[in-house]
Formats: sequence, C-alpha cells, structure tokens
Amino acid sequence: MKGIVIAVFLFASFCCAQESGDFQPAATNVSGAVYPRVDSGSRAQFRVKAPDAAKVRLNFWSGPKVDMEKQPDGFFTVTTPPLAPGLHYYTLIIDGVEVSDPSSHSFYGGSKDASAIEIPEPGATYYLPQDVPHGQVREVWYHSSVTGDWRHALVYTPPGYDTATKMRYPVLYLQHGGGEDETGWIKQGHANFILDNLIAAGTAKPMIIVMANGYARRAGYTPPDLTGKSFGSPEMMKAMQEMAQVFEDDMTQVLIPYIDSNFRTVSDRDHRAMAGLSMGGMQTFQVTFDHLELFSDIGGFSGAAMQMMGGNRGLDPKVDLHGALADPEAFAKRVHLLWIGVGTEEPAMMHAGIERLHTSLDEAHIKHVFYESPGTAHEWQTWRRDLKDFAPRLFQQSSSKP
Amino acid sequence: MKGIVIAVFLFASFCCAQESGDFQPAATNVSGAVYPRVDSGSRAQFRVKAPDAAKVRLNFWSGPKVDMEKQPDGFFTVTTPPLAPGLHYYTLIIDGVEVSDPSSHSFYGGSKDASAIEIPEPGATYYLPQDVPHGQVREVWYHSSVTGDWRHALVYTPPGYDTATKMRYPVLYLQHGGGEDETGWIKQGHANFILDNLIAAGTAKPMIIVMANGYARRAGYTPPDLTGKSFGSPEMMKAMQEMAQVFEDDMTQVLIPYIDSNFRTVSDRDHRAMAGLSMGGMQTFQVTFDHLELFSDIGGFSGAAMQMMGGNRGLDPKVDLHGALADPEAFAKRVHLLWIGVGTEEPAMMHAGIERLHTSLDEAHIKHVFYESPGTAHEWQTWRRDLKDFAPRLFQQSSSKP
Repeated sequence: MKGIVIAVFLFASFCCAQESGDFQPAATNVSGAVYPRVDSGSRAQFRVKAPDAAKVRLNFWSGPKVDMEKQPDGFFTVTTPPLAPGLHYYTLIIDGVEVSDPSSHSFYGGSKDASAIEIPEPGATYYLPQDVPHGQVREVWYHSSVTGDWRHALVYTPPGYDTATKMRYPVLYLQHGGGEDETGWIKQGHANFILDNLIAAGTAKPMIIVMANGYARRAGYTPPDLTGKSFGSPEMMKAMQEMAQVFEDDMTQVLIPYIDSNFRTVSDRDHRAMAGLSMGGMQTFQVTFDHLELFSDIGGFSGAAMQMMGGNRGLDPKVDLHGALADPEAFAKRVHLLWIGVGTEEPAMMHAGIERLHTSLDEAHIKHVFYESPGTAHEWQTWRRDLKDFAPRLFQQSSSKP
Repeated sequence: MKGIVIAVFLFASFCCAQESGDFQPAATNVSGAVYPRVDSGSRAQFRVKAPDAAKVRLNFWSGPKVDMEKQPDGFFTVTTPPLAPGLHYYTLIIDGVEVSDPSSHSFYGGSKDASAIEIPEPGATYYLPQDVPHGQVREVWYHSSVTGDWRHALVYTPPGYDTATKMRYPVLYLQHGGGEDETGWIKQGHANFILDNLIAAGTAKPMIIVMANGYARRAGYTPPDLTGKSFGSPEMMKAMQEMAQVFEDDMTQVLIPYIDSNFRTVSDRDHRAMAGLSMGGMQTFQVTFDHLELFSDIGGFSGAAMQMMGGNRGLDPKVDLHGALADPEAFAKRVHLLWIGVGTEEPAMMHAGIERLHTSLDEAHIKHVFYESPGTAHEWQTWRRDLKDFAPRLFQQSSSKP
C-alpha cells in the first residue's frame, strides 16, 4: 500500500493541536466513549481526565512510550502522527502504573486484557461486516484426556451451515500468538468477517475454522519457574517447545476427533489445514510436519519452523522437519499449500528469519507462497491480510465433497 | 472447581506468599496474574505496584471506595472484609483516574470494559463448568430492518442440538441490564453452565437461550443529549422507554423471526419465554405484555414493570399492563409463569418496588412466583440464582414436542 505513512513515534511529532481534523470515536471504543478518536489522516487522539496525576503516558506496544501533555482543564492529551492501519494494542501509564483504558474494549494480548485502537485502512472492507450472509462463531468446551481438563475453543461455521444439513466442510485450524488466546482471531482479527466476505465473493471455499487455546499443560505437570527469563531465552524456548508438544497431542488426539465428531467435516487430510500467527505459526509447523498424515495445507503468519526463529541458520531441507522437504516433488504432491508471510515493518530478526526461510525453500526448490504485507508490523493488520491471501488458496487441490 | 482448570498460561511468574491465609488468584484474573486473590473466608486481597503514585483507591461498585495502603516496597495493598459471593465489578483509581485492572479479565458493565473479582460461593457449583455435556454459545449477526444495521446476539444451544437434528426446542429470550450488553449473561452470569447443569440433572428442559443487545436506535434517529442527567432521571427514563420500544420492535419483528428461521425452535407462544435483569426486566415486561400472543412465560430479575420502578405507587391490575391482569383466572391460563425476584441486599427502592409488585399481585390474586436471593445485592449472584430458580419452571405447561 503506497502512501501509507508508517507509524514512527518521534516524540517531536506529537503535538498539542486538537482543533483541526475530522476526528471520530475509534471503532474499538466502548459505546458512548468519545476518546480515543481517529481522523481521516489516520491520526489518533487520546484524552484522559487526570487532574491529580503528575504524569500520564500512552504506551503503544508497537512504539515507544509517549508522555501525554497536561492541559489547564486537568485533561492529559496527545495527538499521534499518522498511524499504520489496523489494530494497535495500547495501555495507559498513570503515574507509573500500567493500566487498561476503560474507554476501550479489551482485547486479550500481552497476557492481559489490554486496550486497543482500530485505525481504518482506506478502501479496505475485507475485514469489516458487509451486507453478505454471516457465519456463526461458536464457543465449544471439550474435555481433554491429554490436559485432564475442559478446554475452550471457538469454531466458525460458514453461512448456511445449519440449513445445508447434508453438506460437509473442510476445516482450517487457526492459532493465535503468544500472550493472546483463542478469542484473538475473532475479536482482533475479524477472521469471521474475512471469511464471510471471501465466501460471498466466491473467492474462498466455505470452510469451518477452529480456533483453539494454544496453551496446554499435561495433567499433573508442574511448569518451570520462568521468573526473570526473557521472551526468546533458552529456558522460555524450551518451555514453549514442551507446551507445544502437549498442545500438539491435545490437538491431534482430542481436538481434531472432537471436531470431526461434532461438526460436519470432511475428515481427511485433503480437507484439513492449519495456520497460525507468531507462536501459533511455530506450533503449526511443529504439528503439521509431525502429522502430515493429517494435514495438506500449512500456513505460517509471522512465525514458522522453530529452526527459523533462532536467527542462527537457514533451513536444511535434508534434515529439518523430519526430512519432509528432502524430495521437492514428493513434497509438492503431498502438501498442497505451504504458505509463509511477514510484514515489512516487523522486527528485523523476525523479518530476516521468515525471509531466510523463503530463500532456503527457493534454493531447495520447495514449492511455496511467500507474502509480504507492506507497511505493517508484528500486528493484526499483517495477519488479517495473511488470512485474506491464504484462505482462498485452501482446499483447491481437493476434489469437492459432496 | 472439581479439577477443572481453564487455560493455564505456562509463563506465570508466581511470587512468594506474603501473609498467612490461603489466598488464591481470583478465577476472574487473566492467566498468570497472582493478584487480586481470594481466601476461603471470602476475603479479597488487592496489590498494585505503584511506587510513583500518591494515592490508589479500590472502587467496588457495590460499596464505598477504599484507600489502598502504600507499602515500603512501592506496592499499594488492601485486604477486604469477607465479601458476598459472586462477581463484583471494580475499577482502580490511580491518582484520581478511574481505570480497569489489566490483571483482571474485562466484563462489559457500567458502560465500560470493567474489572471484576469472583468470590466463590461455598458449596455452590450450579454456575461452574462441571463434568456434564456442554451446550454451545453462538455469536450470530442479523440484519434489522428496524434499526437499519447488523445486530449481534448470542445464542445458547443445548447439548445435543447438532446431533438430534429432528428435535425442536423452546426458546428463552434473556436480557442483560443497563450498562451491560449481550455478553453479560455468558461472561458474568455463566448462563450456559447454569443450563448445562440443570439440563444434565434433568431439572430444566433442554432449551435455546437468545441473548440480544438491549440497545436499539431506529434508523435515522438522533438520540437526546443526556449529559448530566442521572440514572433514573425523567429524561433518562424517557430515553430508555423510547429505546425499549425500538428494542421491542426489533425483537418481535426481526429477531424472533430470525431465530425461528435459523434455529430448530418450536415457534409458538407456549414454547417462548422472556426474562431479563434490571433494565432487561423492564424491557421484558414491556415486550411480553405488549405481545402476549408471542410469550407464555415471563421473568423479571431485579426489574419488572416500568410502573413498579418509580417507587410512587403499586400495581393497578385493572389498568396497568393493558389490563392483562384484570381477570386473574384468564391470566393464569394465558401466562404459564410470571416470575419476579430481588436480592435482599439490593438498594431499598429496588427491593421495595419489587416487593410491592409482589404484594400487589397477591392482592389481585395473580398467580406468580416471588423469589428473594438471600444476602446478595444488585449483582450477578442474584441473577444467577434467579436463572437457576426460573429456568426449571419454564415450558412445564406445554405439551412436549416432538
């Protein structure tokens, strides 16, 4: 998207001008909340009544913290420069205390119920509710013999699912990122509206989407003490790998059979895909390459094979991923879609890792799709675009059933 | 919780206990958050790191604001006296700024995404997930010709709905209170678990529950400016009545036909009930008494006929509610269940209003159920208990179909 001004948080760029512009309450606000608001130039304006506070800061997770300016009327205000489109998580810091903004709806991210502001993308309606038939999003609970507890998942059923009772559908398993949960792809990602719109346009096949909780602990397991360990540290990576294994077991041994028993799926590998963002992308590569007998289509959104994420080496197609890539022709027959994507403004290590995976796959003559989201960071607009590009490519190789 | 633990986040950094007692993180916390926490004596303990703040207050909506005490380590702490069981909304006030607590999951109440703490009720499991079959909660979108936009509703389908494809079900329309929305009965109220448990016990008939958004604005309508008007003011009440009329039109002209077209309902008045809490109770009395051709069962949870809520007069059965109560015998034949409830600790006006309605109904020989929830206020534990008492009484007069 040429012409989109990227969010660069230069302190000097923040100004106190409030009078100009055509500001409207953000779509992410609770009903009736006037602030934060957004203008047609993608600037955001925040205003917090805090006459007794010494310092109020705005904490956009995708940029540096910004001091808001205290006005004579006791309000702290700030107007941002133009922001990238999409949903930006934020918190407020009131005299040093990081809190959520009760004027914003809450979104589970960063392991908290955080605030967020939606910046519209000019001309883009693919992730907004349109005058088209809408599918349902269902909360389901299933008992897991792997984790020993009841687990919560969301299931999107496409328009017409309840009336076309003879129809069976392919299934996409779609995973959230670290610090998020199974609600993310609906609340933040609008996956339901993206699919409603693609299906209405005839671009994507009607499909079921299953969004599971990506955290799983084996019954009786005591987690390691990760106090003080940073994200990406060896201890954290090891814990994530262990968690991913339990998640893999739950998904393959419990969740998939549950979905196939309780929804009208086509329960073979040609009609089963998996994708995920960030941590969910890593989980996707692990689960699918461990179980190619279950999946034919694979997507990594800003996250892929664990081997790619360390930043130390490229892919060794003869060895990595159980050698599934060793024979490119055999792989292309077996895996109908291998899709990886990244935003151009993501952190350098993330971008380089995904790009190196893409290069390694090219060098190994592995058929795949590489997608770059222009102007977006490690944020939901990247992943909404990923899904929009990914979903129409799914289940195209499979013979249509019924 | 009978061994049921939901979505355990691996990366929790559990800190050392600082006091005696058996405090545990509240069930309403986000995964990994250690505070707030609750002990077996129903005391709650809050702890907020705020070394730079001068004053931190805890704002329980059901009680007075409490100053938290600053400790030498920069944390503000407070331990409450024993609290009533159930879900208590709260916010934090950091140097005068009312904010949500990112350690708590958010619940839409008071027209904001607020924090809340769950105090377990000793021995009560009826509203907790148990080892029983679970229904689904579905998000649906329907286009309303009354409001001119797409409207969001939640629909609970009972266990077995998807497999018993010949079965048709009665429907309960269940409304949230003022400042809440259609998510309240699930997130705060656990209506799905309450029904799962009642159905598993054979106490309630399997039913569909529809939870609509109680705010509705006719297409093109400009709402009045209610700035500075208090809740309960004539202007606010008038606006609520107008909104209730649009809601009534949307419900009777659009939502009910939509539900009957898209779910396997028994679409007659004997198999259709409506109930609501507070504002939703008032809406229930308005909608059902305007449309007794559509409903046979009526419930008001801490809210009932608008006439009762002003506190000025009792019911005049010959005149009020379109005179539907004028002939007690005819009414008892027509309305199979008239149910009203209130918590003993609710505000005096609310309690007196509902009790006076009960007395008026008795004096007029109108068959009804009056339920008092002991020790609970205008809060969700009252309404959970209401639903537990109300739901088993539904659809008992109707001939079972099929």
